[in-house]
Amino acid sequence: MRNIGIAGFGTVGQAFFNQISKNHKNFKVIQIAVKNIKKKRKVNLKNIKVTSKVQELATNPDIQVLVECIGGSSGAAYKLVKTALENKKHIITANKALLAMHGNELVKLAEKNNVSISYEAAIAGGIPVVKAVRENLKYNNISKIYGILNGTCNYILTKMEKEGKDFSLVLKDAQKLGFAELDPTFDVKGIDAAHKITLLSSLAFNVPIKFSSTYIEGVDKVELDDFRFAKEFGYKIKLLGVAERKKDSYEQRVHPCLIKEDSEIAKVENELNAVVIIDDMIGKTVLIGPGAGGKPTGAAIVADLIDLNRGNINLPLGNSISQSKKLKNIDILDSSFAYFLKIVVKDEVGVMRRISDILARNKISIDQQKQEHSNKRGYATIVIITHKIKEKIVLKAIKEINNMKRINNKVKFIRIEG
Amino acid sequence: MRNIGIAGFGTVGQAFFNQISKNHKNFKVIQIAVKNIKKKRKVNLKNIKVTSKVQELATNPDIQVLVECIGGSSGAAYKLVKTALENKKHIITANKALLAMHGNELVKLAEKNNVSISYEAAIAGGIPVVKAVRENLKYNNISKIYGILNGTCNYILTKMEKEGKDFSLVLKDAQKLGFAELDPTFDVKGIDAAHKITLLSSLAFNVPIKFSSTYIEGVDKVELDDFRFAKEFGYKIKLLGVAERKKDSYEQRVHPCLIKEDSEIAKVENELNAVVIIDDMIGKTVLIGPGAGGKPTGAAIVADLIDLNRGNINLPLGNSISQSKKLKNIDILDSSFAYFLKIVVKDEVGVMRRISDILARNKISIDQQKQEHSNKRGYATIVIITHKIKEKIVLKAIKEINNMKRINNKVKFIRIEG
Repeated sequence: MRNIGIAGFGTVGQAFFNQISKNHKNFKVIQIAVKNIKKKRKVNLKNIKVTSKVQELATNPDIQVLVECIGGSSGAAYKLVKTALENKKHIITANKALLAMHGNELVKLAEKNNVSISYEAAIAGGIPVVKAVRENLKYNNISKIYGILNGTCNYILTKMEKEGKDFSLVLKDAQKLGFAELDPTFDVKGIDAAHKITLLSSLAFNVPIKFSSTYIEGVDKVELDDFRFAKEFGYKIKLLGVAERKKDSYEQRVHPCLIKEDSEIAKVENELNAVVIIDDMIGKTVLIGPGAGGKPTGAAIVADLIDLNRGNINLPLGNSISQSKKLKNIDILDSSFAYFLKIVVKDEVGVMRRISDILARNKISIDQQKQEHSNKRGYATIVIITHKIKEKIVLKAIKEINNMKRINNKVKFIRIEG
Repeated sequence: MRNIGIAGFGTVGQAFFNQISKNHKNFKVIQIAVKNIKKKRKVNLKNIKVTSKVQELATNPDIQVLVECIGGSSGAAYKLVKTALENKKHIITANKALLAMHGNELVKLAEKNNVSISYEAAIAGGIPVVKAVRENLKYNNISKIYGILNGTCNYILTKMEKEGKDFSLVLKDAQKLGFAELDPTFDVKGIDAAHKITLLSSLAFNVPIKFSSTYIEGVDKVELDDFRFAKEFGYKIKLLGVAERKKDSYEQRVHPCLIKEDSEIAKVENELNAVVIIDDMIGKTVLIGPGAGGKPTGAAIVADLIDLNRGNINLPLGNSISQSKKLKNIDILDSSFAYFLKIVVKDEVGVMRRISDILARNKISIDQQKQEHSNKRGYATIVIITHKIKEKIVLKAIKEINNMKRINNKVKFIRIEG
C-alpha cells in the first residue's frame, strides 16, 4: 500500500501531500490529478506524474491507494471512485457528500473487490470518530449519536451569540475570513451536517446509508433574540446532527437545537466540532476537536493510510453491508421534543388566554414562559418552553396560533435536545 | 482468536464475561481462573472450566486470548502474562500497574512472539483513547497529552468543591458509595493516574515505559479553601496526569492543578475521565467519558478482542519498542509553571513587604494576589498567582518564606496548568 494517487489538489489534497512528503517517506505519491495543470504551486512535484485527466488514476496499475479530494457527490468523484474500486484500489476520501449519496453502492463494490473505503477525514476532520465508533463503541449497542458536525454553522452561531450580529452579517464576516464558502448553501442549510450524521447513523446502527431519510433544517432562520431568550432559560443554540435508535426504528435529523448550557458540548465554540455517543455499556463518550481545515483533514487521511498499510483492511461500515439491519425510519412528525416557541403578538387583553387555550386543547403543557415588550411598538414577545410533545401536535397548535388575528409574525420554534 | 481464558473474576472479569456471553457469541470463554472456586456466583458457568490455579491459563493450549483481570503489578498477574506471552497467547488487560512497571519487558516479549498486548481497558475505561492515539493521533507529532485519569480523585475533588466537605469526609463518603477503594492509597496518592500517564506518554512519544520518571503528587493535600480561592481567580482544581514533549526531552507528572474554569475539561466532574491530546496537525483533541466501572472496562476489553479477531495485530505501543526514542527526562525542578501560593501569616505591619521582597529577590513576578482574614484570629491568608517560573526557584523562595517568623503554616502551592 505504498503507491498513492491523489485526485484533486486543493487545500486538503495539498495538506495531505505535504504531510506524507515530510513525515511519512515510506509512502510514495506517484500521480496527482489537478484541474489546471499549468498552475504554479508551492509544493515540489518532482518525479510525480501530474495529469488533468483525473480518471487516469482509477486505472493506473501502479496506484494501490487512491486519495480522493475532489469533492461533490456526483460527476468526476463518483465515476473515479467507482472505477478505482472496480480496479481493486483502496479508497481514502474526505468526501461525505459522495458517501452519503452513493455510499451503499460504493461500499458493496469495495466489499466485493476486497478493498477498503476509509473516510475518517469525512466526518469531524481530525477527530478519530469513525475509528472510535467503527472499531470500538459500536459493539456496545449505541442508542444515540449526535454532535456539532459543521464548523461553519458553529462559527456563525457562536459569533451571533457573542457579538450580537445577525445571521447575514456574521456570514459575510465568515466568508471574508475563510470560515465559510462563497456559496455557503451546503453548510448553512444543514446539508453538510446531514451528510455526516447519515454516515454516523449507518456506522452506529448498522443500517444502510440513507440520506433521503435525514430531516434537515439549517441555521439561516435563527434570530438574534433567540440566543438571549435561550440563555434566560439556561440554554445555548447549536446546530446538531442527531441519529437516534429505538427498538426497531431510528431517526436521522439536523436542525438548530437548544441544549443545556452546562452540557459537555455547549462550550464547543467557533469552528470546533463535537460528537457524543451514547451506548448501553459506557454511557456517554464525548469527542471534541477541529472539524475542518487542511491539516486536520490531511492528518485523518494519513491515519487511514497507515491503518491500511498495517494490513487493517476494515469493512467500510464495520459490518458487511449485506448484513445491515432493516430498521424503520421515524418521521420527524412522529418524534417528540420539548419546544422553544417564540410568538410576537399584539399587546392586548386576552391574547395570552387565546394562546393558552390553543396549547391546552392540544394537550401541550407549558414548562416555562416569559413575556416582554417587543421591539415593535404595541406588540409583545412571548416565549414558551413546552414539555415533551409530538412534533405533529406542536405543528398543529402553531398553525392555529398563526391563524390568530393578533399574531405579528409566524410562530418560531426551536427543538430542545436532551 | 475465539477461545478465551479469563484470569480474575471480579467486577471487570464478570462484566466482560456477561457482555461476551450475551452479545458476542462467536467468542467462547473456555476457562476462568477464580480466587475462591466454591463461591456462589450469579453468572452461568456451565461448560466452562473453572480453576483456582491461575497459571494453568498461561499454558492451556486451547486458549488463544488471555484476558487478565487480576490486577497488581507483580505476583500472579506478572507471572501469568509473561508465561502466556511465551506460549504465544494474545493478552488483553485492564492492568495499568503491570504495564507501567513491567511494560517494556512484556512488550518486547509480545513482539518477539508475534502476539498482541491490548490495554484499551487500562486507561480511561471505555474511552477509546489507546486506539485514538496509537492508530491515529500519534502520527501527528504529539507535543502534549494530559487529562483527568483517576475517577476516584475527580469524584473527591468535585464533592469537596460542590459540597464544601473536606478531603477525609468526602473520602469516607466515596468509600461507602463504592467510588473509592477501602485502601485508597493508589488512587488518592496519584499512583494510579501516574501508571496511566506513563503509558500514554510512551504511546504518544514513542519512548520506553518509564514509571520511575513520573513525578507524583496526590489529592490528599488539597484544602477546602483552595477551591474558593481558585474560583476567585477563575480556576478549578483537578488532578491531572501530564506528559509533555520538548525537542529532545519529555516530562511525565501527576499532581493537582489549577485549570481555567472555561477550559474543556474543567467541567468534567465526578467519576468522569478526560484526555486531551495536542499535536501539530489537528491542534487539540478532547475525549471525555467514564473512566472506570465494570461495564465500560468490560466494553473496552470486548473492543480489543474484536480488533484482534479482525486480524488487527497491533504492536502494543504502535511502534516497535526496539525503535523507541531516547529522550531525556525533564526533572520537575527544571520545569516552569505559574503557581498558586497560599500563605497564612501573622497580620502585622511589614509581613507582605517581607514576602514581596523574597519573591522579588528570586525574580518571581506576581500576576494576581488577594489577602483576607484567616480563620485563625490575628492571622491573614495571602493568595498569590505568580507568572511562570522554574519550580526550583519557587521552592527556594517558599523555603525562605517558611523560615519567616510570622508564618503560621508552611506555604501551600498548586501548579497552574496551561
